[in-house]
Amino acid sequence: MHKKRTAFFVSDRTGITAENLGHSLLSQFEGIEFKRVRLPFLDLPEKARDAVVQINEASLADGQRPLVFSTLILPAVRNIIEQSDALILDLFEMFIVPLEAELGQHSSHAIGRSHAAGMNYNARMDAVNYALSHDDGGISRELHRADIVLVGVSRCGKTPTSLYLALQFGIYAANYPLVPEDFSGSDIPQAIKPLLNKLYGLTIRAERLQQIRTERAPNSRYASLENCQLEVKQAENLMRQFSIPYLDVTTMSVEEIATTILHQTGIKH
Amino acid sequence: MHKKRTAFFVSDRTGITAENLGHSLLSQFEGIEFKRVRLPFLDLPEKARDAVVQINEASLADGQRPLVFSTLILPAVRNIIEQSDALILDLFEMFIVPLEAELGQHSSHAIGRSHAAGMNYNARMDAVNYALSHDDGGISRELHRADIVLVGVSRCGKTPTSLYLALQFGIYAANYPLVPEDFSGSDIPQAIKPLLNKLYGLTIRAERLQQIRTERAPNSRYASLENCQLEVKQAENLMRQFSIPYLDVTTMSVEEIATTILHQTGIKH
Repeated sequence: MHKKRTAFFVSDRTGITAENLGHSLLSQFEGIEFKRVRLPFLDLPEKARDAVVQINEASLADGQRPLVFSTLILPAVRNIIEQSDALILDLFEMFIVPLEAELGQHSSHAIGRSHAAGMNYNARMDAVNYALSHDDGGISRELHRADIVLVGVSRCGKTPTSLYLALQFGIYAANYPLVPEDFSGSDIPQAIKPLLNKLYGLTIRAERLQQIRTERAPNSRYASLENCQLEVKQAENLMRQFSIPYLDVTTMSVEEIATTILHQTGIKH
Repeated sequence: MHKKRTAFFVSDRTGITAENLGHSLLSQFEGIEFKRVRLPFLDLPEKARDAVVQINEASLADGQRPLVFSTLILPAVRNIIEQSDALILDLFEMFIVPLEAELGQHSSHAIGRSHAAGMNYNARMDAVNYALSHDDGGISRELHRADIVLVGVSRCGKTPTSLYLALQFGIYAANYPLVPEDFSGSDIPQAIKPLLNKLYGLTIRAERLQQIRTERAPNSRYASLENCQLEVKQAENLMRQFSIPYLDVTTMSVEEIATTILHQTGIKH
C-alpha cells in the first residue's frame, strides 16, 4: 500500500533545526512517502492562522493528518498552531518544561536569542573569506593563519568541506590539491611543507572519484579509473609517509566530514 | 549568584541537530553560564562508556548534573548514556514513540538513514562549485543556469549567502556586486540586465557596512561612513527603480538570510 503524508516544519525563525530533526526522525520510517513543507518566520498570529489553513488543507488532501515538527517559541503563535488538524511534535514544549524544572528558572519564551549562543557573524564571514582566498592552493602570505589545511586529490571534497568548516564553525580552513607532479619526488610540496602539523588529508575511493570527475570531464585521462586509482594510491602513500591524518570521505556528507575533522583534531579558531 | 552548568550534545552522527536545538533551548535561560561540549559519532558501546565517564566528571566538577541533549538512535548506546549522572533530553525517544503510534509502524532504529532524506551530495557540490565560479561578478556563459543572482554593495553578505544557499539547499546562486560606477547611469548593469527576474538584493545599514569595511580597509574612503551611506542609498534606489526584491540583512545571520530568500521567492533548484 502506498501511503503519503505531509510533514510541516514550523518555526518563528528559520525552521532549519525543526527540519533537520524532522528529516532524521522521518528517515526511520521506510515505505512512507513524506511531502515536506517548511513554514519559517511564523512570528505573528495572522501568519500562524495562514499556516493552520495550509496544514488543514493538506490533511484533507492526504486523507491523513499531517505531522507538524515545531520549534515555535511564542505562546500566541503556538496556541494557534496547536488547533490545526495535525500531530504536533513540539520540540520546544517537550524540552523547555523539564529544563525549567532542572534549572529552577522560567524560560524567557522570547525568540531571537539563539544568536548570542552561536558563532558570531563577523567571525564566520571572515572565515568564509579566508576559505575562499585559500581555496585550491590559493597560497598567500596568510597561510600561517590557517587553523587547518586540507589536502587531497582534485575533486575529493576539499572545497565544500573548507567552506562548511568556515560557515558553521568559523574555522580558517585552507585547502591544497595534491596533483600528479607532487608524487614524482619523495617529498611533500614545498608550499605546504612548513605547515605539516596543520595538514589533514581527504581521500576517496577511486570508483567514486571517477564518477565525480566524469561528470566534469567525460572520457578524459583525468577522469579514467586507472588514473584515479593511481592518484588516490599515491596521495595516500604521501599522507602515510608524512604521518598526515586522513579520512576516507567516500560515503560521507559534508557535515559529517567537517564534524569528524573537528572531533579528531580538536581544532578551534 | 553565578551558576555554571555543562551541556553535552551527543549523537551517533554529527551532533549538529542536537547542538542547534540545544543552543536554542539554552538561550532561553539567561544568567546561567553553560559550558558546551559536543560528543559526536557515539556509535559503539565503548565510546558511550567513555562519554559517561566524561559526563560524570563534569557533574562532579560543576557540583550540578549536566544536561545531555541526545539524538542517539542505537538502543545499545542510548542505554549506556542513560545511566550517566545527567538530565537526559532524548530528542529521538521523545518523538519516535508518538510517531510510531501515529504512523502505525515501528521505526527502524538504525543510524545512517538521514542521507536519503536530504539533498544529495553531488547536487550540493555542484551548487557550491557554481557559487564559487559565479562569486563577485564572476559572470560566464553559465549565468543563465543561476536559480538566483544576489546583488548589493561590496561586503553586504552576498558571498556567504550564496555559499549557504548552495551547501544547505543545493541552490545555484550567483552574486554580482553593485559598485559606484553602476550608479552613474540610470540603467542596471548590462551583464545582469537579461536576468532581471532572477535578481535579489541584499542591503545593510550604512553604520554596519562602515564597521565591516573598516576591518578590511581602515581609514579608506571605501570604508567611510559618508561613502557607505551614499552607496547603500544608491543601491536601494536602483533596486526600487527596477522592482528588485531586497532584504535588509543588518541584524540577520546567514541562515536567516538564506531561509528568508527561499521563503520569499519560492526558488528551488
